[in-house]
Amino acid sequence: MKPSHIEHIGIAVSSLDEVIPYYEKLLGQKCYSIEEVADQKVKTAFFKVGQTKIELLEATSPDSPIAKWLEKNPRGGVHHIAFNVDNVQVALDECADAGIQLIDTKPRKGAEGLNIAFLHPKSTHGVLTELCEQPK
Amino acid sequence: MKPSHIEHIGIAVSSLDEVIPYYEKLLGQKCYSIEEVADQKVKTAFFKVGQTKIELLEATSPDSPIAKWLEKNPRGGVHHIAFNVDNVQVALDECADAGIQLIDTKPRKGAEGLNIAFLHPKSTHGVLTELCEQPK
Repeated sequence: MKPSHIEHIGIAVSSLDEVIPYYEKLLGQKCYSIEEVADQKVKTAFFKVGQTKIELLEATSPDSPIAKWLEKNPRGGVHHIAFNVDNVQVALDECADAGIQLIDTKPRKGAEGLNIAFLHPKSTHGVLTELCEQPK
Repeated sequence: MKPSHIEHIGIAVSSLDEVIPYYEKLLGQKCYSIEEVADQKVKTAFFKVGQTKIELLEATSPDSPIAKWLEKNPRGGVHHIAFNVDNVQVALDECADAGIQLIDTKPRKGAEGLNIAFLHPKSTHGVLTELCEQPK
């Protein structure tokens, strides 16, 4: 497995309305898309910096994984890093063979139609790690 | 200010020896450089994924900023994100004009000879943020 680039960096925020203006100033661009991902109970806002998206994540429900994460990290911060791979299923199988624990053993749908899967935090030394494949 | 890409993602680890093998498996490559940055009391290990480096950071002293960060986050995790800009001084001045607080008002030398500066966490919604300029 050899990821081609960092597909996105997921950043947990308590309020998109509050944080989007900061990133618009920092990155010199407007947020290009806001999307709700019902499955993950989040609303996302996207920026693009070179090959990599900045994905701001706001919880849409108190039982959202982002809401729980923010209870422990109330200021917000980097929630996960996503690596782009050619084929998520192949990459997951390679991770498993290499002894890396998985959350998802099969890809599922994420924001922007990507096929995604998460590795298990027990294996990733504190960095929640996602694998992404562009939709065909 | 419009950063061209994510220059690196800084990841705090308690032991490079323990974590480097994980990233070698995940990224399908060998760590290409290990460098001590005495000024910041860290030893760094580098990988490259597309435009972006993964910079693992191990403290070399108990009073290193990384040692202090790991006291609060003992599993390790994403410590900072660094954006590449053409000119750090110009970018810092633009940030200050936009009301973003700074740690460094002038660039200093970081790993790999880069000119670097940090924004103040009070302004960055929980994400420690660095600006980097390639050495001329």
